[in-house]
Amino acid sequence: MPYVAPVKDMLFVMNELAGLSEVVGYPQYEQAGIDIDLAPAILEEAAKFNQDVIAPLNWPGDQNPSTLQDGEVRTTPGFKEAFSQFGMAGWQGVVHPAQFGGQGLPRLISVACFEMVNSANMSFALCPMLTDGAIEALLTAASSVLQECFVPKMISGEWTGTMNLTEPQAGSDLSMVRTRALAQADGSYKIIGTKIYITYGDHDMAKNIVHLVLARVPGAPEGIKGISLFVAPKFMVNADGSLGERNDIQCVSLEHKLGIKASPTAVLQFGDHGGAVAYLVGEENRGLEYMFVMMNAARFSVGMQGVAIAERAYQKSVQYAKDRVQSRDLNGSPEPVAIIHQPDVKRMLMTMRGYTEASRALAYYAAAAIDIQHASPDELMQKEHQAIYEFLVPIVKGFSTEMSIEVASLGVQVHGGMGFIEETGVAQYYRDARILTIYEGTTAIQANDLVGRKTVRDKGATAILLAGKIIQTEKALMEMGTRDAKATSIQLTLARQAFESVVVYIVSNAKIDTKAVYAGSVAYLRLCGLVLGAWQMSRALLAAHRLRDQDPSFYDAKIATARFFAENLLPQTQSLATSILEGGHSTNALAVEQF
Amino acid sequence: MPYVAPVKDMLFVMNELAGLSEVVGYPQYEQAGIDIDLAPAILEEAAKFNQDVIAPLNWPGDQNPSTLQDGEVRTTPGFKEAFSQFGMAGWQGVVHPAQFGGQGLPRLISVACFEMVNSANMSFALCPMLTDGAIEALLTAASSVLQECFVPKMISGEWTGTMNLTEPQAGSDLSMVRTRALAQADGSYKIIGTKIYITYGDHDMAKNIVHLVLARVPGAPEGIKGISLFVAPKFMVNADGSLGERNDIQCVSLEHKLGIKASPTAVLQFGDHGGAVAYLVGEENRGLEYMFVMMNAARFSVGMQGVAIAERAYQKSVQYAKDRVQSRDLNGSPEPVAIIHQPDVKRMLMTMRGYTEASRALAYYAAAAIDIQHASPDELMQKEHQAIYEFLVPIVKGFSTEMSIEVASLGVQVHGGMGFIEETGVAQYYRDARILTIYEGTTAIQANDLVGRKTVRDKGATAILLAGKIIQTEKALMEMGTRDAKATSIQLTLARQAFESVVVYIVSNAKIDTKAVYAGSVAYLRLCGLVLGAWQMSRALLAAHRLRDQDPSFYDAKIATARFFAENLLPQTQSLATSILEGGHSTNALAVEQF
Repeated sequence: MPYVAPVKDMLFVMNELAGLSEVVGYPQYEQAGIDIDLAPAILEEAAKFNQDVIAPLNWPGDQNPSTLQDGEVRTTPGFKEAFSQFGMAGWQGVVHPAQFGGQGLPRLISVACFEMVNSANMSFALCPMLTDGAIEALLTAASSVLQECFVPKMISGEWTGTMNLTEPQAGSDLSMVRTRALAQADGSYKIIGTKIYITYGDHDMAKNIVHLVLARVPGAPEGIKGISLFVAPKFMVNADGSLGERNDIQCVSLEHKLGIKASPTAVLQFGDHGGAVAYLVGEENRGLEYMFVMMNAARFSVGMQGVAIAERAYQKSVQYAKDRVQSRDLNGSPEPVAIIHQPDVKRMLMTMRGYTEASRALAYYAAAAIDIQHASPDELMQKEHQAIYEFLVPIVKGFSTEMSIEVASLGVQVHGGMGFIEETGVAQYYRDARILTIYEGTTAIQANDLVGRKTVRDKGATAILLAGKIIQTEKALMEMGTRDAKATSIQLTLARQAFESVVVYIVSNAKIDTKAVYAGSVAYLRLCGLVLGAWQMSRALLAAHRLRDQDPSFYDAKIATARFFAENLLPQTQSLATSILEGGHSTNALAVEQF
Repeated sequence: MPYVAPVKDMLFVMNELAGLSEVVGYPQYEQAGIDIDLAPAILEEAAKFNQDVIAPLNWPGDQNPSTLQDGEVRTTPGFKEAFSQFGMAGWQGVVHPAQFGGQGLPRLISVACFEMVNSANMSFALCPMLTDGAIEALLTAASSVLQECFVPKMISGEWTGTMNLTEPQAGSDLSMVRTRALAQADGSYKIIGTKIYITYGDHDMAKNIVHLVLARVPGAPEGIKGISLFVAPKFMVNADGSLGERNDIQCVSLEHKLGIKASPTAVLQFGDHGGAVAYLVGEENRGLEYMFVMMNAARFSVGMQGVAIAERAYQKSVQYAKDRVQSRDLNGSPEPVAIIHQPDVKRMLMTMRGYTEASRALAYYAAAAIDIQHASPDELMQKEHQAIYEFLVPIVKGFSTEMSIEVASLGVQVHGGMGFIEETGVAQYYRDARILTIYEGTTAIQANDLVGRKTVRDKGATAILLAGKIIQTEKALMEMGTRDAKATSIQLTLARQAFESVVVYIVSNAKIDTKAVYAGSVAYLRLCGLVLGAWQMSRALLAAHRLRDQDPSFYDAKIATARFFAENLLPQTQSLATSILEGGHSTNALAVEQF
C-alpha cells in the first residue's frame, strides 16, 4: 500500500502545539529568511519525494536485503540511486549548518521530514540518520580541519557516516570497550579492534564512509573516562579532497536480522593489516562525553522512528479495515459490512491512532524546545527549554518505541490471517519496529536516565514544572466546558496526580531503596509518556475547538481522538502508579537461583 | 538452547490447583486404572521425548520450512521420522477413547503433554493438534462406519487430520462459505471449492490425510444454518482399510508466513477434476453446530500454545540473563555482573514468569473442569463445571495468547541486540507467537463470545459464581495473615470488585448500548484473565505456604511470584475497568470517513 505523508496532521502539531511561529520568530531564523510559510512547502516536497521514491523500495528491501560479496556490501537494487537523489535534493542537509552546505532549518521542521523518510522506509532512513549522527559528532568536537575535510561531503550526501560503539562484550555498558588506538608520529592514530552492530558499516550507496569510532589509547584510565573518539574514513582523503587508498577497515560479516533487513548491520574489523588510520576527535579520553552530547539527538531520532512506523502501520490497517467485508454490523442490518464498523476494530484503530498522534505531538514539542534553547537569547528560556528537552528525550525514545511495537502488532491483528502472510506487508512493520526499543539504548537505559539524571538529580523540579503546565491545560478544558473537554480534563487530572505522587516517591526513595525504585523505572517512563502525551492531545482538543469551523470533520476527529486517549489509554497511569509504588520489592524478591 | 519441561511446576498446578486427585477419583478413571501416581510417570516420559526428539527440530524447521514441489509438500528433514516416533509412542492418542486405541487419560494430564510438545516445537505440534480436532469432529458427529474407518488410524498416528473452514471471503464469518457439496447416487458427495489457511493441508509425514470440510449442499439455507460437515481423505480408503486412489484434492500453494514456518499452510483446491469424494458427517446443514462442539477444544488448545511458547521464551531469557555480564549492580559493587541482577531485567523475567504461570494454572483448572463435567455422575456438578469451562475457554484462548506475544517480545528485549539476530532463536518465538491471537478465532471473536454467550446470556451468573470463589480465596489469604498473603489479598479484592462492576455494566447495557459495550469486550477479556489468573496465583500462594517446608526455595518462589503478579500485573484491572466503563462511546466516536 502506498504511504501518504500526514502533512495536515504534521502542520497542525507544528503550528498549534509546538509553536512554530515562536520558533521561526527568533533572529537566527528570521535573518535566514525562514518563516512560517516555508513549512508547508517543505513538507509537501518531502512528502512527494518520500512517497514516490523511497516508499516503493521498502518491501523490496525486506525481500532482497543487503548482501556481503567478496568483502563488499551490495544494497538492495534501487537504494543507491534513491540515496543519490536524496542527497542531491538536499534532504541530508535539512537541519545542518548553512556554512557547511546545509539548510539550517529548525529541528521542528526537519523532524517532519525525518518522520516521512522513516515511514516510507526505515531501513533506508537509517543511512542518513547515522550520517546525521556522525556529522553532529564532528561538529560537536572535531577540529575545523577535520570538519572541513568530512562534513560538507556528508551533508551533500556524497559520503555517509557511521557510529562504532558496540563490541561483543560492550553493549549497554560502553565502559568495557577494548578497541585500541595507537598514536603515530604524524599526529594520526592506528585503530585495532572489532566493532559489531554497525549500521550501514559498509555499503555501495556512497563513495566514502566516515566511521566515528570509540577506542582506548594506551594508558587511558579504566572505564568510561578512558574512552576516546576517532574518525576513520573507509577511503583515505587526499589533501585536495580526492579519495586515496582503502583504509584498513573490513566488513567481515552482516547480521541476519528479524527486521530492518535492507539495512546492512556489519561486523567491522579495524586494523587486521597494521591498523586503521584514524584522527582524534577533540581530546583524548573525552570520547564518551562527546557521544553524550549527540546521544540525545540520536535517541530522539529513534523515538521518531517509532512514530514513523506506527503511522505507516496505522495507515495500512485503516485501509484494510475499510476494504475487508466480513460479518454484520452490530446495529442489526442484514448485509455484511467492512470490518471498520466492528467496535473492536475501531478500538484497535483508535488505539493505533491515539498512540501515534500523542507520540508525534510530544516529539515535535520536544523538537521545538531544543530549537528555542538554541535560538533564544534569554538565558532563563534556554535553561528551561533545555531541561524540558532533556526530560523528554528518554520519554520520546522509550515511549514512542514501546508503543510502536504495540501499534505494529495491532496492525497485524486488524489484518487477521492476512496479517500473518508476509506478502501483505504489515508483518514487516512488526518485525522492523522490534529493534527500536533496543538500539541507541534499551528502554531500561532510557528509563534509568529518566529516573536518575532527569528526575532525581534536580529533585523532581522539571517534572513538577511540567505538571504545572498540565494543570493549566486541565483548567482550560474545564473552562471550555464541553462534554468532551470535561471528560478529558477529569482523566488528565487523575493521571497528573498519579504522575506527581510517583515523582515524589522516586525522589524520596531513589537513594534509600534504590533497587525497588529502579524496578519501576520503565513503568515510570511509560506513565510519563501517557500523561505528557495526553497533555498534548488535550492541547490539540483545545486548538481544534477554536479552529473547528474551518474544517469540522478534521477538527472533530482531533477532539474525539483526544477524548478516546484520555478515557481508554491514559487510565493505564493508575495501574502503573500502583505497580511503581507497591511492586518494587516483589519485583526483586526472587534470588537468581530461584529463576 | 535446549527446552526443559517444567514438570515440577506442572505437577504442582495439577495437584494443588486443578484437583488431580478429585479428577482421577471418578469411576471412569478409577476403573481404567488411572491414578494420581500415573501423572509424574507420564509427564517425565513426555518431557524426555519432547526435549530429545521434538525440540531439536524447532530451529531447523524455521530455517528450512516446508516446501511445495510438483504438487506435493515436503516437510523439514526430520519431521517425518519424529512424527512416526510420536505416533508409535502413543502420544497422539493420549486423550482419545480406549475403544479406538487411545489412552483415555483425563484432559488434565493430557494438557501437560500438549504444552510440552508445543514448547518444544509449535510448528510440529500443529500436526497432531489439527489431527486431534479432526478426531473429535468425527467422534462428535460421524457415523460409526466413518469413525471405524478413520479414527483408529488417526489415533495411531498413521494418518493425520485437517480442518477446512476458511475461504478467501469467509474468515471470521463462516456464514459466507461457498464450497459446494453435491450428493451422489451412492450416498457420497462431491466437493468443489477452494479452502485457504489449511494447516498441514498437505505433507509427507503420514500415509493419508483426513480432511474435515465445511461446504453447502444445493438448496441449503443461507448463512450459518446451511453449512454441512464432510470428511474427505487425501487417498480413498478401500473396504479392507488399504489405500486406494488419490482423491481430487490438490495443494496449489503454501503461504509465506511470519512464523510457524515449518508448518505448511496450504491452499487446497477441491474438485478441479470433477469433485473430491466426501462423506457427510452427521446430518446436512448441521455442520457449524458440530464445529462449535469441538471449537471449544480447539480454542483451549491454542490458548495452551500461548502458555507453551511463553514458557519457552521465559526459559531462554532466564538463561541469557544469567550468562550475560554487563554493567554493575546497583548495590555499588565495582565488578560487572550478570544482567539478571538489574531490576528491570528482573521485572521483565518476573512479568514473563507471572503471566506464564497464571495462564498455565487457569488453563489446567479449566481442563479439570471439563474432566469433571464428563466424569461426574452428579448433574449439578456437570452443569456447574460445564458453565465454568465454557466461561474460561475464551479467556484461556484470548488471554494466554495475547500475553504470549507480550512475553515473547519481552524475551527479545531481555536479549538486547542479540535478540534481534535470528540465530539467537528468541526472535522465532516472537514471530511464532504472533499467529496465536488470530487463528481459531481472533481475540475479538473470543471477547465477543465471552460478552455475549458467556456473560450476558446467563445474566452474569457464571461470572458471579467465580467472583464468589475468589472472595473465599481473599478470605483465606487474610486468615493466613503473612505480609505476602495480605498484600496479595488486598490487590485481589480490588481487582475482583472491578470485575464485578464491569460484569454488572455489561449485563445491564449489552442490549441498550451494544456498540459501547462491545468496544470494551477485549478489555473485559483481559480483565477476566488477570483477575482469574491472580486468583489461581493466590491459591498457589496458599498451597505453597502449606507445603513450604518440603522445599523452601521452590515454594517461596511461588509465594513471591504470586505477590509480584498481584502488585505489578493485576492492577491493570483498574485501568481496564475505567476504559470499559467510560471509554465505549469515544471508541466509536469517529465516522468511517474520519479515519
